[in-house]
Amino acid sequence: MKEVMAIIRANKINQTKKALVDAGLPSFTANRCMGRGNRPVDFEMLEALKNETEDSADVLPSLSQGARLIPKRLLSMVVPPEQVSRGVQLLMEVNRTGTQGDGKIFVMPVTEVYRVRTREEGLSAIDEMAG
Amino acid sequence: MKEVMAIIRANKINQTKKALVDAGLPSFTANRCMGRGNRPVDFEMLEALKNETEDSADVLPSLSQGARLIPKRLLSMVVPPEQVSRGVQLLMEVNRTGTQGDGKIFVMPVTEVYRVRTREEGLSAIDEMAG
Amino acid sequence: MKEVMAIIRANKINQTKKALVDAGLPSFTANRCMGRGNRPVDFEMLEALKNETEDSADVLPSLSQGARLIPKRLLSMVVPPEQVSRGVQLLMEVNRTGTQGDGKIFVMPVTEVYRVRTREEGLSAIDEMAG
Repeated sequence: MKEVMAIIRANKINQTKKALVDAGLPSFTANRCMGRGNRPVDFEMLEALKNETEDSADVLPSLSQGARLIPKRLLSMVVPPEQVSRGVQLLMEVNRTGTQGDGKIFVMPVTEVYRVRTREEGLSAIDEMAG
Repeated sequence: MKEVMAIIRANKINQTKKALVDAGLPSFTANRCMGRGNRPVDFEMLEALKNETEDSADVLPSLSQGARLIPKRLLSMVVPPEQVSRGVQLLMEVNRTGTQGDGKIFVMPVTEVYRVRTREEGLSAIDEMAG
Repeated sequence: MKEVMAIIRANKINQTKKALVDAGLPSFTANRCMGRGNRPVDFEMLEALKNETEDSADVLPSLSQGARLIPKRLLSMVVPPEQVSRGVQLLMEVNRTGTQGDGKIFVMPVTEVYRVRTREEGLSAIDEMAG
């Protein structure tokens, strides 16, 4: 089993939830988180400063907020290995806007899975039909 | 070391915390999350609709909320390999009600552990007696 | 790739964020969580009770709250293997006060990484220069 974890835009969570359910990947958790990526936008800001454009006054405060975090959503699901690729592709499709901040997807190993209600272990614990 | 992560009912968190502490597994984190499982309850709803029972009117709105998430709690602890089984059994025991939504438990590999205060690494960093 | 996850004091998050950005490790997520460690402080409380000091009346209520959780921050970043050690050292340096509750750091395996915007996979998806 694998965990597929996606850090996505907050305003993409409803669309993503619906897409997962429609695709038959209905088991997941979601949570708020704060995140930041590599902010190459700052290099543009530095350029603006170097060029001493009119906007420099506006740029300086932004630069000083380099460690500021942006509200994101963290979505996580545990799936059988053969569904990882489909889940990743779906998450990328729904969340891709083409601009900075679309997010990242991580795949992590999961060694054991249990369903609390039935004490099932392994694949049947996350089988979609078994409930 | 292993991470044992449980997604459980929100109203089970206090009982679960107490059970873990009482069992000598006192190191864990807890967090709110939103989650959903496979909702086979929807199949019952579809049956109700097919049978055209009086309740159909009540069922339709529920069906349209297929992507709705339910507040859950996410509990996580990192334990030595030999304590995984005990932790999992305990979590299942405390959280099992027998009805849909009891939750899932995932076990994941952890390759390094550090205690910030002492810079200890490895098993001693999560040793319960060492503090 | 590896995930470096740190559970730290809530009041250390801003300093930690800044240190990571300054060190060229700018991609991470942060979240609130509730946590508890091994609370050896309780043994001191028990001592106080045994010694029947004047403070016993104050100690008893604390003891009965053994399962109480403390607000913490959970910080997570995915980095190439060769940056794990630097990240861990930095997190320990910034968050070490020497008193109970400084937190823990866990390193976990990550098998796949994707950047949603570009569909890049692997190391380039988390390359700091690529944005």
